[in-house]
Amino acid sequence: MPNPVEFYFDFSSPYAYFAADRIDRMVGDFGRDCVWKPMLLGAAMKETGAAPPVKVPIKGDYVKNDWARLARFQDLKWTMPDPFPIATVAAARAFYWIDGQDPAKAKAFAWDCFTTFFGEGKDISSKETVAAIAARQGFAEDDVLAALEDEAVKQRLKDETSTAVTNGVFGSPFFIVDGEGFWGADRLWMVKRWLKAGGW
Amino acid sequence: MPNPVEFYFDFSSPYAYFAADRIDRMVGDFGRDCVWKPMLLGAAMKETGAAPPVKVPIKGDYVKNDWARLARFQDLKWTMPDPFPIATVAAARAFYWIDGQDPAKAKAFAWDCFTTFFGEGKDISSKETVAAIAARQGFAEDDVLAALEDEAVKQRLKDETSTAVTNGVFGSPFFIVDGEGFWGADRLWMVKRWLKAGGW
Repeated sequence: MPNPVEFYFDFSSPYAYFAADRIDRMVGDFGRDCVWKPMLLGAAMKETGAAPPVKVPIKGDYVKNDWARLARFQDLKWTMPDPFPIATVAAARAFYWIDGQDPAKAKAFAWDCFTTFFGEGKDISSKETVAAIAARQGFAEDDVLAALEDEAVKQRLKDETSTAVTNGVFGSPFFIVDGEGFWGADRLWMVKRWLKAGGW
Repeated sequence: MPNPVEFYFDFSSPYAYFAADRIDRMVGDFGRDCVWKPMLLGAAMKETGAAPPVKVPIKGDYVKNDWARLARFQDLKWTMPDPFPIATVAAARAFYWIDGQDPAKAKAFAWDCFTTFFGEGKDISSKETVAAIAARQGFAEDDVLAALEDEAVKQRLKDETSTAVTNGVFGSPFFIVDGEGFWGADRLWMVKRWLKAGGW
């Protein structure tokens, strides 16, 4: 069985939303699984000194226009969220807690977070909102709220984030295929060619 | 006659080299001309606070690997230059001076700068090296050296750079198609679709 493709992202990353829409299908065409790995991008940004693109002069206007046109291109619903960016620790913790029980439900939860945040423009930073989204996958809201305070769940997210940074992840989305890293939703073509050719 | 596509770049940008290899042919397929507009990216970086990617922790290693694999992919010669990045004011001034006389020669000169710097890894920051490259397009080296100190030539580069920043250019390469901006060598697919559909 070939290695799964790793998909690193922060729930507050629009480009991750655009990639999440396509990555499983694309990777599946090459007989690979895709493992979704939410992380806290802020930890990587401490290393790189980067700022969220929307906060950067000139670039901020560019990315807002770019997100809207990518949504049109991929036929995805798009609402520029406000506030943005947001804290995603609750969503990421909930993801790993669900993932420990049912990875398919964790992906469905993650996609629901993306469409709620970027499709409908609703803030998903609070524990209550995250619990309500998890409830749509059949989890009791009280169980989710308890899991968000669970030390093992908290540690899992810390470990995943620090492993990501150690593996060279500095942006979102970021893909690793057999040790080779690819940054950005606009590099899916390159991931595809790499999968096809086994490098080049 | 439709508007030409504008191609903004800094001569010290590897991604501009990869885009320069393809942009004229791609744009020409849609009956458009492409105008090459070298600029000093440092001026944009003052506005955005961005650092050259190669200097950024983690990202620096990523881009070096990325440049090498893009060169393999596009079948272009690649040598990681040292020193890097370099000052490109001489190359950019020479470009505009040549462009005032013969735009086709200016593009040939620019491509020669790219292949000398990124293909052979030779420093092209000095006036003498720039003059030697321009000489390969039939210009006398003394005339080039004089032009590099010409006030009108200096002002042209300042104006082009400040117009670029005003137009929203914050990185290299950057393309503008009928007022719509596209950042990055990995967005040529998007420029192509925009040209084809007239937006979407």
